[in-house]
This record gives sequence, structure tokens and C-alpha cells, in this order.
Amino acid sequence: MTLEMIVRPGLEGVIALDTRMSHIDGMAGELTISGFALEEIAGQATFEEMVYLLWYDRLPTADELALFSEKLASKRDLAQPTLDVLRASADKKLSIMDALRMAAGTLSLYTTSDSLQDGAEVAVATFPTIVSAYWRLLNGDDPIAPRQDLSHAGNYLYMLDGEIPTPDRERAINTYLNTVIEHGLNASTFTARVIIATHSDMISAMVGAIGALKGPLHGGAPGPALDMVFEIGTPDKAETVIRAKLDAGERLMGFGHRVYKVRDPRADVLGTEAKRFFAEGDQQDLYALAMHVEKTAIALLEEYKPDHKLQTNVEFYTALILHGIGLPVDLFSPTFAVARVGGWTAHALEHINDGLRIIRPRAGYSGEFNRAWQAMTDR
Amino acid sequence: MTLEMIVRPGLEGVIALDTRMSHIDGMAGELTISGFALEEIAGQATFEEMVYLLWYDRLPTADELALFSEKLASKRDLAQPTLDVLRASADKKLSIMDALRMAAGTLSLYTTSDSLQDGAEVAVATFPTIVSAYWRLLNGDDPIAPRQDLSHAGNYLYMLDGEIPTPDRERAINTYLNTVIEHGLNASTFTARVIIATHSDMISAMVGAIGALKGPLHGGAPGPALDMVFEIGTPDKAETVIRAKLDAGERLMGFGHRVYKVRDPRADVLGTEAKRFFAEGDQQDLYALAMHVEKTAIALLEEYKPDHKLQTNVEFYTALILHGIGLPVDLFSPTFAVARVGGWTAHALEHINDGLRIIRPRAGYSGEFNRAWQAMTDR
Repeated sequence: MTLEMIVRPGLEGVIALDTRMSHIDGMAGELTISGFALEEIAGQATFEEMVYLLWYDRLPTADELALFSEKLASKRDLAQPTLDVLRASADKKLSIMDALRMAAGTLSLYTTSDSLQDGAEVAVATFPTIVSAYWRLLNGDDPIAPRQDLSHAGNYLYMLDGEIPTPDRERAINTYLNTVIEHGLNASTFTARVIIATHSDMISAMVGAIGALKGPLHGGAPGPALDMVFEIGTPDKAETVIRAKLDAGERLMGFGHRVYKVRDPRADVLGTEAKRFFAEGDQQDLYALAMHVEKTAIALLEEYKPDHKLQTNVEFYTALILHGIGLPVDLFSPTFAVARVGGWTAHALEHINDGLRIIRPRAGYSGEFNRAWQAMTDR
Repeated sequence: MTLEMIVRPGLEGVIALDTRMSHIDGMAGELTISGFALEEIAGQATFEEMVYLLWYDRLPTADELALFSEKLASKRDLAQPTLDVLRASADKKLSIMDALRMAAGTLSLYTTSDSLQDGAEVAVATFPTIVSAYWRLLNGDDPIAPRQDLSHAGNYLYMLDGEIPTPDRERAINTYLNTVIEHGLNASTFTARVIIATHSDMISAMVGAIGALKGPLHGGAPGPALDMVFEIGTPDKAETVIRAKLDAGERLMGFGHRVYKVRDPRADVLGTEAKRFFAEGDQQDLYALAMHVEKTAIALLEEYKPDHKLQTNVEFYTALILHGIGLPVDLFSPTFAVARVGGWTAHALEHINDGLRIIRPRAGYSGEFNRAWQAMTDR
């Protein structure tokens, strides 16, 4: 009560809490996750290792990782009421994010509401099952049950099409998931924190976070970044198409970031992964085209907007990699949620384990005072 | 980016946005809701009028109110998937708040996700149906379908026990709902704002808000306030029991408030309502006992903690009135949600209609830097 009141619309520039989950240095173009530079860890760890790191603040030993992976794998199944909700949603053709939010809510049916740890494990373990089951239902196919003998990422791809992924595809999806698992107090992570800070349960916090992630202002929707590549089609058309867009004042999707001014470290990591992933196989033309589009776009952005220093952002390479792995655009945002639930759960666990306080700003009042009640006949 | 960074743990004392929904003057003990002093409106308006006021910033005419009430009444029914989720929850004996959160999530199955207005109407209209249906399922009874010819509050009581409430009970529940419909940026309302500010949908915002309300630190759980009254049992034991509690250093539930220092205007409004409600009927002894307990508690708190100026708070009279109406303690918090969804929806509509920005504070970093990857064999 002794604190001076301060007005900060949207809470811009207000540090609400401390976290050891990640540090974003936008000016230097660096992202640190649990002590590791993103470049150091994203391409080497499995998703299970990355979640373990966020939750326990260190890399697991071989035994710890085996136990942890086994525990997560044992919690992949969906109960019937969750599947029923997905079927009802598919009948209505609801968006995957709506269905994920609804289905995630029903996880309280088979978690221990009192255990944040169990809630976190169930959420991380089941998001891929929910997304893949719903995707198949939307397309008129039956869901494919999870396999406990596959890795978290490998099982996700398996449940989508029934094929056990090649090590190359599995590595690529792991690197993608690790790259976007955590990114400070974005709106969805903040939502999870606000909810858990009342000492509510983990599932409530996750459901709230999905609701915030759904919003188009949240960011993390990488679909449009690839549209331009497809629109251009062949390298020789890149300059003409991009110039036309810039002349028309259009924004180039996949370039520039609100926070990262010199480089987006996530784009670098995914760019390296893309180079590796597309080095062999039948998608080398697409990769070459994307690289040419990127080079052309950067050069033209430098010409048209020299002061903006717009660089390739995470959406561009996300779209390229997820497309390369074989995911349709509609699965890009849900796959982002499959990754980010790692960060959401970690933030929620940290908030409670560190004994952090309830999050409760104030509102100013812009309304009237002293209105008088009027009987219905006087209105 | 030019704003100075400021550290405010839990966002205490930070004004995040302006609202015309309510103004809390803790020092004066005054609560203004949409321009009306709480005392001016809570005991006169119906819940439908109060929701209309919050959404449209004025009282409705007779025609407008009829149309609005009819529209809400037409949206009271639950679809089968929602009822299925409630049945599955009842099988697991989940808490009513868990079940409400899950069932509310499924409302996306029959709202237009693109229409905030439709989402708000469906949420307000169905919360009483969800709560009463679940309450009955928990007790082994079949849900009672809503009746469109009853008022919002009257229909809620009807769906609980199948009896059309007397005008007295209906007035009392209306006054309660109006009294707690809105109270600034508490954690649940703030959650709804954070979610909707990403331009997500109304149901997502409501589900997040329920999740935050569930938390024991949120406040609004009036059950324990009445426990002391029952424990005391007869007026002659009041002083002995309360002295024993104060000697043992116990906190007296139902007295004192973090913000309202001189009086809690909600306690005053509900106190007036209680006096009216208990004036006749067979619960006059309970009322007399509660009044004696209150008087004794205030006197002893003045003796034991003269500097604290602890007054009766909203929980004390909430518990007394809801008990008097016939609601069991387990329904107190869910009934609070039935009221507060009016405020949540109003805040969400205001946020979007006023074009307010995304809500996104920052986090400080308390972790390490430059950790080095270790191969599994080196860990």
C-alpha cells in the first residue's frame, strides 16, 4: 500500500516477476533458455530433455531421462470423455485450437487436481495426442493410439499419419519444439502465471494459456510466412513478386520482429536445422527456392526500409521446417502449443515452488459517479 | 520501448488499463458499479438489468429489458456434449468449480466463436444451468431443464430443487448476484482481460477466469464465515467462543478486508437485504444469532486489535444470505461465479470495444548464462 501508483497501459515495461526459464536479449539477438544459449541446446536435446531442463534446472542423467521419458509416455492416452469432446468438436468443424482448449480442460478428469507435477506431466504428455487425434477426426480418420515405445516427438508424428518417422524427421521436429518451447512472459505464459498464482490447478493454468495463444495478436502463427514462397513458385520470380508487395506497402510475413532487432536466434537455429534437413531427399528444390526468396527479401527490405534492419524471423523457418516434415499449415499453431506447454508448465511450477505472489494490477476508473436509480416507467 | 523499465512484483500498484465497470474506494468504503453506488442499485435491479447496465453502460427500457431477458433465457440449454462432461465429472466426484470450468469450455460447441456478444450471452445464460445440473448429478439426481418463463435468478434456484422460488428468495438471490457481479481487476477478471486482449474468443476468456477464481488465494469463498456462527450455536456462547479464538491467535473469518478499511459496502448492502429477508419465516433465530455473533465479534476485535478497525466483510453476509436462501456451502463459490461472469464478460467486451492493447509485462531473469551442453556420458 506504500507503493506509488504508476500507470502503464498494457503493462509495457513493467517487470512483474523473476524467472530462470529464459532471458531474451533483443538488442544482442540472444535467447537463453535455462542457462543455455538456444544455439547450444535446441539442436542437440530431445524434447524430453528440454522439458526436464526447464522443470528441474539441469540436464538429466541417462537414468533420470529414461525414467522421465517413460513416465511421460505412460500418460499419453486420452480417456473416453476427452475423445467424445473431440468427436463433437469435429462434427462442428471447430478450429484445432478450440478443440485443444476444450479437450485440455477435460484432463482434470484423470489428473490429480492437487498435484501440480502430475498436471504438468499429463498436459505435456497428452497435447500431441489431442492434436493428432483431432486432426485425424477432422479429416474423417480414426485417431491413432499413442505408442509408448516412441519418443515424445516421434510419437507425435506417428499419431498423425501412422508412420514411424525417420530419424531425420524426428530430429527436425525435436529441434523445432525445443526452439519455441519457451520465450519469456508472452501473453499465454503470463496467463498461466496469473492463474496458477491464485494457487489454482495446473490444468486450469494450461487451459487459460491455450485461450490466450489462440488470439491472433499473440504471435506464433507461422502459416503466412510460407505462403509467399509458394506464391513466388520459382526463383526467377522472387524479385518481381517481392518488389510488387513492397511497392504496394504490404508487410512481408516472416521478416522482422518486435523484440529481436539484429537477429532472431530462433531463426538461426531453425535455419541451421533446415540446411541439415533439406540436404538430402526430394525437397531440395523447395529449400533452394526458400533460400533465394529469403536472400531477395532481405536485400529488398534493406533497399526499401534501410532503417528497419528487418531480418528473417522464426516464423519463416518454422513454416519451412514444419512443411518439410510434412505438417499441413493448419497444424502449425497447434504444434506450437505442443511445444510451448513445456514452457507454460515450467513457469507455473516455478511460480509455486518459488512461493511467488498473486498477480494483481489495478485499473483506473473512466466511468461516471452518482448515477441515480430510475424506475422502469421513468427510463 | 522508450518507457523506463520498472520492477513491480505481482504488479502491485500498477494501473494496467482504465475501465468504466467499477471503482473501488477502499478508504471511503465505497464501490461504484457502472456509475451507481452499490447501495443505489444492487437491491433494486434484477440480475438481467445489472448485466445490461455493465454491457451497455445504461439501464434498459422496459422493451429493451424484455428483449434482453428473452435472449438470455433462450440460451440457457446445455448441449449433450456438455452434459456428458458433467456426468463424467460427477462420476469422478470432481469439485463444482472444476466441472464448471470444463463444461464452460465446451460452450464453444454451440457459440459463434467470432461473436464476442454471442459468447458473452451464452456464458452468462448457461453458468446457472451448468452449476445446477452438476450439483444435481453430484447428488445422484437428474438435472432439471431450465424454464424460459422464469427470471435468470429465479430459474437458477428452480433448477437446483425444482421449486419455483418465492419472490422473497428471488429478490435475495438477485441482490446477492448484483452485489458481487463486479469488483475491479481481481485475478479472475484480469485473466479474462489478458486472454481477450490477444483477440481470442469470449469462451476462452471465461474459462481462464474460472481457472483463476478456483484458486484459494483469489478470495470470494464465503463458506467459513458461517461456520463460526454454527459453531457458536446459541447467543450466550458467542463471547466465550470468540474470545477463545482470538486468544489462540486465530483469524475471525468474515471480518476485515484487504482493501476496504472503514466499511465493506457489499456487507452493508447484503446486511440490509438479510434484515429484510429474515424478517419473516422460520429462520429468525439464525438471523438473531448471526447478528449477535457479528456484534460480539466487532466489539472483541476492537478490544483485541484496536488498530486494525476490522469490520464485517462481504463473506459474512454472503454466507448468511445464501444459507438463508437454502444453498449448501458447496454452492457458494459456484454461485459467486454465476454472478461474476457478468463482470468478466463486461470487461472482455469493453477491452475489445475500446480497442485496448495486448497485456504483456516483462520478466526479470534469475537464471544462469553460458551453460555448456554435456553429452549423456559426461553428466
